[in-house]
Amino acid sequence: MARGFELAAQGPVTGGNPQVGCVLLDDTGRIVAEGWHHGAGTAHAEVDALSKVADRPDGARGLTAVVTLEPCNHVGRTGPCSVALLEAGVARVVYSLSDPGAASGGGAARLREGGVEVIGGVLADEAELFLHEWLASVRRGRPWVTVKWASTLDGRAAASDGTSQWITGTAARQRVHEQRAASDAILVGTGTVLADNPSLTARGDGGELLEHQPIPVVVGEREIPADAALRRHPAGLIEAGSRDLASLLSELNRRGLRRVYVEGGPTLASAIIAAGLADAFSIYLAPALLGGDKLALGELGIPTIAQARRLRIDSIEQLGDDLLILATPRASSVPVPSGGRHSLTEGI
Amino acid sequence: MARGFELAAQGPVTGGNPQVGCVLLDDTGRIVAEGWHHGAGTAHAEVDALSKVADRPDGARGLTAVVTLEPCNHVGRTGPCSVALLEAGVARVVYSLSDPGAASGGGAARLREGGVEVIGGVLADEAELFLHEWLASVRRGRPWVTVKWASTLDGRAAASDGTSQWITGTAARQRVHEQRAASDAILVGTGTVLADNPSLTARGDGGELLEHQPIPVVVGEREIPADAALRRHPAGLIEAGSRDLASLLSELNRRGLRRVYVEGGPTLASAIIAAGLADAFSIYLAPALLGGDKLALGELGIPTIAQARRLRIDSIEQLGDDLLILATPRASSVPVPSGGRHSLTEGI
Repeated sequence: MARGFELAAQGPVTGGNPQVGCVLLDDTGRIVAEGWHHGAGTAHAEVDALSKVADRPDGARGLTAVVTLEPCNHVGRTGPCSVALLEAGVARVVYSLSDPGAASGGGAARLREGGVEVIGGVLADEAELFLHEWLASVRRGRPWVTVKWASTLDGRAAASDGTSQWITGTAARQRVHEQRAASDAILVGTGTVLADNPSLTARGDGGELLEHQPIPVVVGEREIPADAALRRHPAGLIEAGSRDLASLLSELNRRGLRRVYVEGGPTLASAIIAAGLADAFSIYLAPALLGGDKLALGELGIPTIAQARRLRIDSIEQLGDDLLILATPRASSVPVPSGGRHSLTEGI
Repeated sequence: MARGFELAAQGPVTGGNPQVGCVLLDDTGRIVAEGWHHGAGTAHAEVDALSKVADRPDGARGLTAVVTLEPCNHVGRTGPCSVALLEAGVARVVYSLSDPGAASGGGAARLREGGVEVIGGVLADEAELFLHEWLASVRRGRPWVTVKWASTLDGRAAASDGTSQWITGTAARQRVHEQRAASDAILVGTGTVLADNPSLTARGDGGELLEHQPIPVVVGEREIPADAALRRHPAGLIEAGSRDLASLLSELNRRGLRRVYVEGGPTLASAIIAAGLADAFSIYLAPALLGGDKLALGELGIPTIAQARRLRIDSIEQLGDDLLILATPRASSVPVPSGGRHSLTEGI
């Protein structure tokens, strides 16, 4: 199973499908074939592994398939893996987590009905950790949302005149590009688009476009100019129009956009946090002070200290002169997101 | 000399006098006696060491005195060390740094005139580092100023309703008490006194008073109530009245208060920073978000990003769930303090 996770990790982090790995073992426990999911629309891990035993006399007959997620049971852009495993004649299937998808779940039952020995729950905790973003997205019907901001140590995102290039140094800015490339969508408010005209592409340190480009999603009702850099984004552009964040996130999830990276501005970031929709925080802190009124976060609707939104710091990293703090909300400190409308206040 | 620093470190960090150590060596380099300065009003390190060879047949005659600072040359609450060393008949004096004091300097010259071999500048860099707060205070005529604040990761010092107990946890708060105990004075604005009625004592983790208590200094023109906790402070109370920070700091320095710890509120801290009077920063960051308008720092008079006050992070420490960032201004980024009046804006 551990080898399965290694294989899974070779597939793309992004996209609607989970990273899955599959190992085929013979009676002696020897690895006969390995496979992994290469991205949406391509063969699932099980089918990828099965394809590699096609020239074996018995094919996959009598082998054990170890899979990092319950084999799927539905026809999407590819056929159900449960059927592929059955037809290949595997004797045993070992998997970690059950598939949480309403449509895709049920593969284990189907295999058992077909006479295959099925063992689930192996290294399930590791699988939870490995797939936590994807699992959260599928279970809750909204993407995993990471809110990112860069500020000085006194919490400012810009100077009084609005200038903010560059609060952080090159190493921190390069990390932002990597985080973009590991996301399916980037959320920004119209205010940021109008003020900064960002390209929101994921670029390497030579300025070249990285292979995966997240799609930019602009929240807010103001018009985006025809000549905005975003209109030339290689992944396209989603203009959300509305400011109904909960509905927007559900819609993005339906489109298979499971990892959303919120890049501001302060009004959008604050609205996401206030609504309890932030799953993680990437906080870049520059060793500088600015003072003034250009804050990285605005109003969170927290009246008193007992209701402070408490975070757990998962890591602190020094990037050049800057710090990157990765944090997640403490469970007890997150408001339950309502289904209702979470409005952004005007004037990002 | 290294042993001298060890001895020096046994004396108190606080107070008007520097930490100094002295070692007396015989011809073979063997240590005959050691001394250090135990605090203002007591024997200096040299005299302390000399007192320990009183029962030797030749006393200190012919010995080498290794001292971590040039022996003083003036009569304060004790006599000049240069004269004590001369009268004791030491053959040689080795020291690191010259005494920067206008009144106390000149000890080396006096010793040379008296026929003693004098070697200065030994491990001078170490001495600079060891005594940097005291040296800065003596050279500039104002205390070493550390500005401390505690905030959430979004730079807030309190929630909207003004509540701030407790943003940080017990380990961080205990460290604040230790930092108070290593200071000569604590600076606060009248606004903080009126709002929080702080005691500003340095306490141990059982709530007991620590041995050294810094004297609280209240900046601002508003009256402090007769029943304020500060009026019962064991070290007394200085009511600065005025908001002229440069003059106030000079006056504190004249009183031998060489390490000032600024505990806020935001208006006072911001004014100190804006005036270029902050020598160091102790920034406690709690893993929490608050939003709202109760900022740890207010206006710094920085119009554009190029003028951001850049800091060098000297250390990052995890204290319970909180972070303590110790930082110092980058030399290129500090405005030169003028001799003029640095006003605090109204309404701390």
